[in-house]
Parts: sequence; structure tokens; C-alpha cells
Amino acid sequence: MLTLYYAPGTCALASHLALEYTGARYQTVRLDFGKTEQRSAEYLRINPKGRVPALVTDHGILTETPALLLFISQTFPQASLAPLEDPFLLARANEFNSYLCSTVHVAHAHGRRAYRWVDDAQAIEAIRKKVPQTVGESFELIEREMLKGPWVLGERFSICDMYLFTLAQWLEGDGVDPNRFPKVADHRRRMAADPVVVRVLAAQNALV
Amino acid sequence: MLTLYYAPGTCALASHLALEYTGARYQTVRLDFGKTEQRSAEYLRINPKGRVPALVTDHGILTETPALLLFISQTFPQASLAPLEDPFLLARANEFNSYLCSTVHVAHAHGRRAYRWVDDAQAIEAIRKKVPQTVGESFELIEREMLKGPWVLGERFSICDMYLFTLAQWLEGDGVDPNRFPKVADHRRRMAADPVVVRVLAAQNALV
Repeated sequence: MLTLYYAPGTCALASHLALEYTGARYQTVRLDFGKTEQRSAEYLRINPKGRVPALVTDHGILTETPALLLFISQTFPQASLAPLEDPFLLARANEFNSYLCSTVHVAHAHGRRAYRWVDDAQAIEAIRKKVPQTVGESFELIEREMLKGPWVLGERFSICDMYLFTLAQWLEGDGVDPNRFPKVADHRRRMAADPVVVRVLAAQNALV
Repeated sequence: MLTLYYAPGTCALASHLALEYTGARYQTVRLDFGKTEQRSAEYLRINPKGRVPALVTDHGILTETPALLLFISQTFPQASLAPLEDPFLLARANEFNSYLCSTVHVAHAHGRRAYRWVDDAQAIEAIRKKVPQTVGESFELIEREMLKGPWVLGERFSICDMYLFTLAQWLEGDGVDPNRFPKVADHRRRMAADPVVVRVLAAQNALV
């Protein structure tokens, strides 16, 4: 059985959603970032990067959201979470997910985790101030160029929708008005109303 | 026919290598970053992100290195550039490529392109100073946890090797001694001696 390590409010939500959409059985382990459990010796043996998500499989442990999303899609093909039969559309999905992990998530991370890239306190503050701009610009590109509608890939619901929904949850916290992006905002409302999403968010936020 | 837009010294080298390893015919278009051709109106119609690589295909234009590498592998399966028949090993490849694009490349980008995340000149300088540390730490993780040897995935040569070679080319420029990482350094020497790599680097660096 697959076991997902996650923390609430992180990008691990995307993989959690994908697992729930498969309809298959899986387990989850919640880490408490408030107690920096992601840096514990025990967890570093699971994921030496000290991050979530991590997915424990029968073959080994996998990390990195884009890799997990495609792996879950391939492991449960009957759930049709990715256009596995169409290499070009699959490349479009991977392109989207790669943009989210390498540009959108990175822009967001400069808000609370700028210490990854600089030590100076004044620089950290200067970086934090630009987050609304960089996150805002990346969502402008998503709104204008990427989100075909009604889903990211067009008519086809996919792992891209789970990942976009996950990162769109961070907009307010990053000082960006979600209503600047009508298509993204509508996408987010439809996702938030999906019983699968409701169920996963409730599980992630349930008291331990 | 596929057409790759690239600039020398960028991560587009990985996709260029993959195309050459397929043995198939393809075209390339070199952009001059010195003239900021990547921001020209003409190129922004090809890639609104103003970055390389971009791959023009019969179905549309694709961007983002991890997506291009998998697409090239799937388009030319006989070249065996990725473990397409093994979803777990493919996930391992995608996990590696995702780490390179979202962590290693991002750490590197803070050296010359910190203005993406901050406006203040002093902050940019402070960020630049940490690059040897962040890039160094990411290659320590690659050396210790990821590069199985002789190739990234073990016995199997793949797109991961092309991508790792591409980013390892930047170590000296990032102020990191490549000899700190014996496995990565050996991998880089073997790649650099491969006639395909020699051919692609010569083509990228040839006078126009």
C-alpha cells in the first residue's frame, strides 16, 4: 500500500488529492512543521531533503510533486488522472507541472523561506516584499496562457488541476488578490466544491 | 520536424543532447542572450515566458526541460532515453529531473538573476554570496543520495544524465569546486568524452 507523508498547507496536497481521486486505498502520515518534524532524524531517513511530499511505495520512496503525480497516474491508469495515451498532451501536463514546481512554488517560497537563498535579515525582508509581484506575475501567465478551461488541459480533468488548486490556495497568504485571475478563481471554486477535495482538506485539517 | 530554441550555456543543452542522442533529424535556433533576443516580441510569441528551451513540434510548442526530456524520449522510444516501460524507475527519473529544475537550477539562478526575486541592490549582492553554499549543498545531495553510478539511474543511461551534465557545467561559475563531488566529476568527464556531447557542444559554441 502507498503511504504519503504530508503537512497541511504544503504542496503535498496535490499528491494527496491524486491518491484520493484514484479511489484506491492508501495511508497518510502527517508531519508537524511547527515542531520541524520534517527535519527529524527519523524523517530524514525517509526523505533526506527534509521536505514533503514523500511517497513510500513497494519499490522504494519517491519525492517531488511532479514525479509523484505522474507515478500515481500510471499506477492507477483506470482513474484517468493524466493523458497517458497522448505523449503531446502528457508533455503539456508535465510542462504545466514543471512550471508550478520551478517557478510558482519557488516564487511563493521566497515569502516564508527566503533564508534558503540568503542569510542577511534585511535582504530577507526585501525579498518578502516582492512576493506579491512575482507570484502575481506567474498567475497572470497561468490565467492568460495556460489554463485552457474548464480544466488546465481543456475538457480533460487531470493532475494539473490538483496541483493548480494546491498552489492557488496560497494566493491570499502571498498578498495576491485571487480575483485578479477570473479563470483561476473559477477553477478554484469548482475544485473546492468537489467532494474529493472537501474530503482531503477535512482529513488534512482534522485534529490529531 | 522538431525545432529547438536554445542559447549556449543554458539548461537547453539537456534537450539538445536528448535530440542528438535520438539520432533523428531536428533543427535548432540559437538565441543571443547578450542581445536579449529571448525577450523579443518575435520570441515571446513562441515562448511567452521569455526563456529557453522551447521545442516547436507538429502539435504545438512545448517548454520546460523535464517535459521536453520526457517528450523526446516518448517520441523516439527506440533511442531508449528513459525507462518508459517501468513506472517506478520513470518516477525516479522524473524525481531527479524535478529536483534539478526546482532546486539546483533555482539555486544557480540566484547568482546572476537574483533580480527575479528582489529589487534591492544590496540584497542581490547578499543573495549572490550564498550561491556557492546552496549549489554546493544540492550537489552534495546528488553525490550522496541520487547518482547511483555509473549513470544517474544506475546501469541505465538516460535523460537524467544529460540534465545532470548540463547543470554540472555551471559549478565553477557558481564558485563550487567540482572535485568535492567525485562521482559527479567522474560522470561529467565521461559525458564530456562522449562524441554526441562533443558534437552538440561544438554546434552550440560554433561561430554564427
